[in-house]
Amino acid sequence: MTALAETPADAFDSPFLQSLVSLIRAEDSYGAWEKRSDARLIEDFIVTRAEKRAMPMMADPDPDTIDRVEKFYKAVGLTIEKRCGLMASPMMKISHEGFGRVVLLVGRLVAFSKSLRDVHRFGFEDFETLAAEGMKAVDQAIALIETHPDVAKI
Amino acid sequence: MTALAETPADAFDSPFLQSLVSLIRAEDSYGAWEKRSDARLIEDFIVTRAEKRAMPMMADPDPDTIDRVEKFYKAVGLTIEKRCGLMASPMMKISHEGFGRVVLLVGRLVAFSKSLRDVHRFGFEDFETLAAEGMKAVDQAIALIETHPDVAKI
Repeated sequence: MTALAETPADAFDSPFLQSLVSLIRAEDSYGAWEKRSDARLIEDFIVTRAEKRAMPMMADPDPDTIDRVEKFYKAVGLTIEKRCGLMASPMMKISHEGFGRVVLLVGRLVAFSKSLRDVHRFGFEDFETLAAEGMKAVDQAIALIETHPDVAKI
Repeated sequence: MTALAETPADAFDSPFLQSLVSLIRAEDSYGAWEKRSDARLIEDFIVTRAEKRAMPMMADPDPDTIDRVEKFYKAVGLTIEKRCGLMASPMMKISHEGFGRVVLLVGRLVAFSKSLRDVHRFGFEDFETLAAEGMKAVDQAIALIETHPDVAKI
């Protein structure tokens, strides 16, 4: 919820960040955020190390935080779909303690699977890291889809 | 939540019903249900057509009902594991309206996938139907695991 000053144009060229921004803009039915920059729209995904340290781990993760985790993996799924034409649907399971698992299902293939920890503190150091982490998940999924296209296309 | 009179012994021989009963008994840490018959333990899974018709579809599905849906698919997963030695983890997503999806993941394979509707009215006509539906899901998953063992074992 900082890091707005040093916005690098190239992170926003990443297909993942473009998907993420388009998902958020799609929810803006009344055009209230129309004049907001892309960076402003996703600034809440940026949580610096110092901010994380200051966050309490008590109680349930904030619903807004869980919503951001969901959006992140939806954007990964959308980017996968744009790349290979197959729909990737996310499924998520998060306990009250902030632990859980997220998967992206493509046909009958679990194209991506990750254990979640510390969901309370979900966020990325800067826009480059956010873009890089998203693209890393996309690349992992695409690699598995290419190895098992028969299962992904069921 | 009737049908107790005509309990057939053979439905309870089904590996699925045995898994379901063992899951429920495992939760009974204080032995409060020790003297209850298996049929009593799972009687809430039996909802006759007439009972379903009488159920309101308003508001969110009852948490106890969602808990039963989860137990059903956990028992399917447990039976799959007993049969082929691979762990099957269920993931479920249910909307407030009682629609959703449940999957059973074995390695990187979506061994079972089903859309859920009318979760409010989840239940089976009698114990035979409950056992048969559980075994049907197990058989479907096992068939897919046998077709794609490489993905199931990742």
